Amino acid sequence: MRESHRHNLNGRAGAAFDYLEENSHDLRVGISSVAKTKVIDCGVKSPGGLTAGLQLARICLSDYAQVELKNGNDGVVIQVYSDHPILACLASQYAGWQINVGSFFAMGSGPMRAAYGKEKLFEQFPDYKELPSEAVGVLETRKPPTAEVIDFIAHKLPPGVDKIKLAYAPTASLAGSIQVVARSLETALHKLHELKFDLTKIVSGHGVAPMPPIGKDDIQAIGWTNDAILYGGKVTLWVNSDDDVLNEIGSKVPSRASADFGRPFGEIFKSYNGDFYKIDPMLFSPAEITFVNLKTGRLFRFGRVEPDLLRKSFAGY
Amino acid sequence: MRESHRHNLNGRAGAAFDYLEENSHDLRVGISSVAKTKVIDCGVKSPGGLTAGLQLARICLSDYAQVELKNGNDGVVIQVYSDHPILACLASQYAGWQINVGSFFAMGSGPMRAAYGKEKLFEQFPDYKELPSEAVGVLETRKPPTAEVIDFIAHKLPPGVDKIKLAYAPTASLAGSIQVVARSLETALHKLHELKFDLTKIVSGHGVAPMPPIGKDDIQAIGWTNDAILYGGKVTLWVNSDDDVLNEIGSKVPSRASADFGRPFGEIFKSYNGDFYKIDPMLFSPAEITFVNLKTGRLFRFGRVEPDLLRKSFAGY
Amino acid sequence: MRESHRHNLNGRAGAAFDYLEENSHDLRVGISSVAKTKVIDCGVKSPGGLTAGLQLARICLSDYAQVELKNGNDGVVIQVYSDHPILACLASQYAGWQINVGSFFAMGSGPMRAAYGKEKLFEQFPDYKELPSEAVGVLETRKPPTAEVIDFIAHKLPPGVDKIKLAYAPTASLAGSIQVVARSLETALHKLHELKFDLTKIVSGHGVAPMPPIGKDDIQAIGWTNDAILYGGKVTLWVNSDDDVLNEIGSKVPSRASADFGRPFGEIFKSYNGDFYKIDPMLFSPAEITFVNLKTGRLFRFGRVEPDLLRKSFAGY
Repeated sequence: MRESHRHNLNGRAGAAFDYLEENSHDLRVGISSVAKTKVIDCGVKSPGGLTAGLQLARICLSDYAQVELKNGNDGVVIQVYSDHPILACLASQYAGWQINVGSFFAMGSGPMRAAYGKEKLFEQFPDYKELPSEAVGVLETRKPPTAEVIDFIAHKLPPGVDKIKLAYAPTASLAGSIQVVARSLETALHKLHELKFDLTKIVSGHGVAPMPPIGKDDIQAIGWTNDAILYGGKVTLWVNSDDDVLNEIGSKVPSRASADFGRPFGEIFKSYNGDFYKIDPMLFSPAEITFVNLKTGRLFRFGRVEPDLLRKSFAGY
Repeated sequence: MRESHRHNLNGRAGAAFDYLEENSHDLRVGISSVAKTKVIDCGVKSPGGLTAGLQLARICLSDYAQVELKNGNDGVVIQVYSDHPILACLASQYAGWQINVGSFFAMGSGPMRAAYGKEKLFEQFPDYKELPSEAVGVLETRKPPTAEVIDFIAHKLPPGVDKIKLAYAPTASLAGSIQVVARSLETALHKLHELKFDLTKIVSGHGVAPMPPIGKDDIQAIGWTNDAILYGGKVTLWVNSDDDVLNEIGSKVPSRASADFGRPFGEIFKSYNGDFYKIDPMLFSPAEITFVNLKTGRLFRFGRVEPDLLRKSFAGY
Repeated sequence: MRESHRHNLNGRAGAAFDYLEENSHDLRVGISSVAKTKVIDCGVKSPGGLTAGLQLARICLSDYAQVELKNGNDGVVIQVYSDHPILACLASQYAGWQINVGSFFAMGSGPMRAAYGKEKLFEQFPDYKELPSEAVGVLETRKPPTAEVIDFIAHKLPPGVDKIKLAYAPTASLAGSIQVVARSLETALHKLHELKFDLTKIVSGHGVAPMPPIGKDDIQAIGWTNDAILYGGKVTLWVNSDDDVLNEIGSKVPSRASADFGRPFGEIFKSYNGDFYKIDPMLFSPAEITFVNLKTGRLFRFGRVEPDLLRKSFAGY
C-alpha cells in the first residue's frame, strides 16, 4: 500500500466521485448500484450537464488538477492546470484501458488504471501503480456497465480492492464532451511520452481548449472533441530541460507535426474507412505548445491554433 | 411542501443569504432587522462591492448557477452558467415582481417570487411554485425596505412562510450593477419564453456580459447595465430542439431583432420620454446567442456584440 | 488589540498559511521549523508550483483578495481583485520591509509589516497597524531564513507576538514569479499613494498581468516579473473621486508616465549599472489603468499594454 499512501490517486478520485454522488440532483446525474458497485450515469438516461462534465474530469484527474469552464473569445473553453501533471494526466486521466466485454466497449480512464497497472505506461513508471482499497474509473461509453463488465474489471484489479466506483458518459453528451475536451494537457504529455521526452522534467502544466458543439451521435462527438484539441488546444508546460532538447522535440509535439493534420478529425476518420488505428498516432496533440524552461529562462512555442478550421468543422461542413 | 422539497429554491437562496450575512465585514454589507425580518444593505449606506454583487447574484439565482468575475478583452466581465437555467433564471432571478408600496418601489427578484407564485410565469409553470418556510428576495432599490414594505410582501406569501430574508442594492452601486449584469442568461431565456419557445427543451446555459461603469444615479446605471447585456452580452444555450425551430426563432432572439436596437439604452429611454413601457419589450435580450442543438449536432449563432457602441455609451457620450 | 480585531490581517494570513502547510504535498512546498518558527519553502529546495504561487499571493494579501490563474489571449495570466484593496495590497502585500541580516537579504511582505508598523506607510495609516498574537510574512529570497533572521524579525515585532509564520520563494521560481505578478493592483495603489492620491477614495480594485517565463536566475526573473506588470498589467479601480482629480493624476499613473518606460526592465536595470535605486520609482506601475468614478459615472483609462515589447522581452532578446 506504499504507492497508495504516497499519491492516493484512487482515494482522491473516490472523494471527487462521492461529491458527484452527493450532488446528484444539482449535477443531474443518475446513481445506481450494479453488482454491489456504485455506478453514476452522467449523460445516458440522466442529462448531466456542464458541472457534471467538470466533475467527471476531476475524477479522471484524481483531483490533482484544477478544471474550470470559462468564456473564451469565441465561446466557452475548458481550462485545466496541474502541479502534478504526470500523476493527474498520465497515471489517471489518460484513456488507456480499453474495456471490451462481449458487446460492451468503453474507453476506461481514471486511477483504476493505476490499480490495474498492466498498461505499458505503468511498467515504465511502476511508482505510479497503486494497491488501493477502492478503485475509481470513468468510462466513455453509451452503454451502462453491466454486472459482467464490473466483474471483468474487478478481476483485473489487485487483491485488496473491495470497492469499485464507476462514472460514465457517452462522448455525445455535455458531460462526456467536456471530460474529453479537458484532456488538452494530457494529450501533450502523452505525445511527449511517445516522443521519448523525459517526463520527470515536467514541473507543471496548463491547457485550454474550446468547447465544441455536442455531436448528434458519438462518432460526430468524437470528431469534434478531437478537433477542439487538435486545432484549438493550447498547452503550456513548465520544465527543467535543455534548450536543445526542447528545440528538437518541440516542433514534433503539436498536431501540425502529423501528416494527418489539416482536416476535421471526422474527415480523417472517414478517409481511413473508420479504422481508428490507421490514423497517425502522432496527430493526437494540442494545436499549440509552449515550453517554459525553468533551467535556462527560455520560452519555446510551437504550432498554432486553427480557428477557421474549427469554425468550419463545428458548423458541420 | 412537495415543490419546496423538490427544487428548494428558497432554501438554497437562504443559505446563500446567510453566507452574505456571516461575511458582512468582508463583503461590506450592512445587516439590520426590520419588523423581525433580516435585511441586508448591499450598496446604499454600506459600500458593498464586487464580491457582494456576485453573492447577490447567487441569491437571485437560488445558487443554481455559477457566477464569476473575470478579465475580458476590454475590462471586467461577469460570467454565469447553469445546468438548471429555468429554475435559476426564470423561477428565481427574473425581476418579475414589482413591489409598489406608497412611495416605495423596487424590482423584486429571487425565489420569494416562486413562493408568491402569482406572476403569469408561475401560472404556466406551476411546478416551480414553492411553499417554503422561509422566503428570500432581492430588491433593486435605493430605499431600504420599511416595516410597511415587509408587511406588504408577507401578506402576498403563502401560509407557512415564517421568515423573510431580503437583500437590496440600488442599480447605481457596485453590487447593484453586478447583479443586473449577471442577467445575460436570464434575458435570453425570458426573450425565448416571450417568443413561445418551449423552455423545457433547454438543457444548460452560459452567459457573459461586460461590467459597465457605475452610473452616477440609478437612471444612468439602468441605461448602462442594460447596454452591457443588449450590446455586450453573449449567451450559449444547449438545447434538445429541432433545427427548423431554432433557425426560425433564433434570429428573433438577439437584441438586434428589435426596432429599438442601435442606440444606448439611456437614449432610447429618453426618446420615449422616460416611459419604460413604451420600449419594445423584445429589445431585452443579449447581443449574441448561440444554440447548440444536442439532438442534431448543429450550432446556430445569431446577433453579434457591438463593442464600439458600448465604448461610446460607457464613455458617457 | 483593537486594530487586530478590526482587520485581523495576520489572523487571516495565518489561516491561509495553515492551508499551505496542510496541503504541502499537493502544493509541493517544504515545511520546516527554524528557531521554533514554522517556515515554508515554496521554491528553493521544494519545487512549489502554480497553486503554491497563488496561495503565496493570498497570504501576502491577508486573504483580502481573490487570486486566480486564467488563460489569456497570449498565455496564462494572473488575476486579482479586492473589495479591501488598501488593506490587502498596501497594508499587507506591498514588499516594503527589506530584511537585511548579515549576508541575508529578502524583500519582506505580508501582514507582519502591519505588526512591525515602522514603515512610513503605517505612520500615515496608523489604523492599519496591528498587535497580533501571530505575525505572518512572505520573503522573496533564495536563502532560507536562519535562526538569526527570525530573531531579527522577532525583535522588530511588538510585544504579544508569540508566533511567527514565514513562507519564502525566490523570484526565479514558479511560486515566486506568480506572487510578484499578482501585484498588478498593488503597484497601481502604491503609485497612486506616491502621487498623493487620497487612498480612502478607492472602493474596489481589479488587476491582471501575464505570466512571464521563469527567469534562469533571480535577476532575469525580477526583470520579467516587472515587465509583466509594467508592459502587460491592467488595473481597474472603482473610486469615489472628482473627475478633475482623476484627469489630472490619472495620466501620471501608468508606467508610460515614467522617463524609464519603453525598454525591458532588465535593460533599464543594466543601464543604471545594476543600481536599483537609480531607476525612476514612478516606473513601477501597471501599463494601463482604468478609473470608474462612482460619484460621477465617468470612466477614465490611461496608458496601454505593450504586447510587442513583452513578447520581445519574454523571448529573451
